[in-house]
Amino acid sequence: MPATGETALVALDWAASALRAFRLGAGGAVLERRHLPGGILRLRPGDTAKPADFERAFVSACGDWIAAAPGVPVIACGMVGGAQGWREVPCAELPADPVGLGSALGRVEAPGGAVWIVPGIVSRGELPGVLCGEETQVAGLVGELPSAECVVAVPGAHPRWIRVVAGRIVGFDTFMTGEVFEALATHTILSHTLRLGAPLDPVAFDRGLAVARSEDGRLGLLATAFSARTLGVDGALAAEAQADYLSGLAIGHELRGLEERRPGLLARAARIVLVGAPGLCDRYCRGLAAAGLPPPQVAEHATERGLWRIAVEAGLVSGGGMSAREPGRGHHQEAL
Amino acid sequence: MPATGETALVALDWAASALRAFRLGAGGAVLERRHLPGGILRLRPGDTAKPADFERAFVSACGDWIAAAPGVPVIACGMVGGAQGWREVPCAELPADPVGLGSALGRVEAPGGAVWIVPGIVSRGELPGVLCGEETQVAGLVGELPSAECVVAVPGAHPRWIRVVAGRIVGFDTFMTGEVFEALATHTILSHTLRLGAPLDPVAFDRGLAVARSEDGRLGLLATAFSARTLGVDGALAAEAQADYLSGLAIGHELRGLEERRPGLLARAARIVLVGAPGLCDRYCRGLAAAGLPPPQVAEHATERGLWRIAVEAGLVSGGGMSAREPGRGHHQEAL
Repeated sequence: MPATGETALVALDWAASALRAFRLGAGGAVLERRHLPGGILRLRPGDTAKPADFERAFVSACGDWIAAAPGVPVIACGMVGGAQGWREVPCAELPADPVGLGSALGRVEAPGGAVWIVPGIVSRGELPGVLCGEETQVAGLVGELPSAECVVAVPGAHPRWIRVVAGRIVGFDTFMTGEVFEALATHTILSHTLRLGAPLDPVAFDRGLAVARSEDGRLGLLATAFSARTLGVDGALAAEAQADYLSGLAIGHELRGLEERRPGLLARAARIVLVGAPGLCDRYCRGLAAAGLPPPQVAEHATERGLWRIAVEAGLVSGGGMSAREPGRGHHQEAL
Repeated sequence: MPATGETALVALDWAASALRAFRLGAGGAVLERRHLPGGILRLRPGDTAKPADFERAFVSACGDWIAAAPGVPVIACGMVGGAQGWREVPCAELPADPVGLGSALGRVEAPGGAVWIVPGIVSRGELPGVLCGEETQVAGLVGELPSAECVVAVPGAHPRWIRVVAGRIVGFDTFMTGEVFEALATHTILSHTLRLGAPLDPVAFDRGLAVARSEDGRLGLLATAFSARTLGVDGALAAEAQADYLSGLAIGHELRGLEERRPGLLARAARIVLVGAPGLCDRYCRGLAAAGLPPPQVAEHATERGLWRIAVEAGLVSGGGMSAREPGRGHHQEAL
């Protein structure tokens, strides 16, 4: 049964593989949330989604909320504003104040009114990168972060490690760890022996982490990944353990790469915050512990808080006295 | 039209994805060669091949040669002797004399007589590895190698970097570069923009090599691979160039990993020999050049020469005065 309360903002996190919709009330309280499969890349499999595809997915995600509250503002973040999205919104440059992105929202006309789209943040250079939704998650956190350099990690298909100083995003690195794990586990010779879907085997996972950190780990994931098979053929790693061993290797190499490129970053960070699915954050917590780092904080509800703050900054909703340091009603249970 | 000449040995290189068959005459001269798609993993797609599958593929590969020369000895190397092969042959341990493997051949009964199978070589430790066909290629080369440490690289789906001292294999490292490239190019987000099948774009390939060697390259392939997409979105890398850029990254990270794990190995090697398809060897030559190393030697016909030498060692055929240092007739055109 839907929570009661007047809708102040409809907020969407519209990513590659999923669409999360939030009905927010006064002060940003979450009144309802929905998780839908209509990610950007799934709207028209094998092809780029068209405006009509976005409109259909939009109406099915939150058309009823808008019909019940005509004129309610709608905000969205994620790939919906990217090159393959509904409306491409020019990215902000580094360094960037993520809450301040509220002054640069893009706009697309949707059934029932405008949808305001949060711009991503681009990092230029030899390895260009883009935050596309993660900037909004950081916006949901910055009020609680110390002003000295912090690191916000967003694990997933394409993990981001975001450096934040005094509320501004100053840089970030992107990996393909989640997607590469999936490709290795299902589309290489490793798939012949590896079994997916078993509960986390912490011994196998930690073994993978340790190999990635070892002398042999210097060879890189291209070499260590093969041991998920050869240890199995040897009988030294059960089929059920191979997936978590490979996951430990992949996350271990991600952490090793970050340390090689940004020596001491994690050790000297005023805070490390993880934003993501709890099971995945657990794996990164183990990885950080294996590297001798203090436990990170695991943040929840960063996306919906960030969307609210950006909407306040944009003037779409009234902050109602809520400030970055004083989360509004509904957020007290969701503090870091 | 088949070459004339009496068959002295039928030699098979029976790998995961293909089966190469050679009809060898006196002194190891190659009278006929065939390339068939009947690799171990293709005999019964999605399942482990059964003895009858091997027998059928065997007869179709060389049944006519054997019928025309009843009693001719048959030798085979590659995954045919592995756990998923026709008959599993116990691996030799390191260090190993690859020609000397002739004294430890496995045997399986086939239509028309026995097939003798060359054992692989296992490397134990935290990252176990196995040579499965590559030991035979080294056997085809050792007579021409200096006795100081040499490195034989066998690029492909699972490249091996094999260290050879005084004719003995003393160690090796295995990568998954070819297969990981394929998985990244066809089963990740990179596939949305990347075009396969264009002729080699040396500028894009070298750019990938350079990024892998750069400061940013310290992040590892998990991070740099994503730039094949982001450079494309930026317009800084055409869709046609992305595959070779990614190939350069992958091979560059393989070389970087090898250097990180075995510092100075390639610089001090008495010789570096590449064994593989010419186009692929070209890529590794570029990679070695980018690392400031002298040009490697590219060896041809290593497999059939190795099978012949091992068969001589086993007493299956008479060497006819051929020694490791004096390749027999038919090999003069095939020297390193």
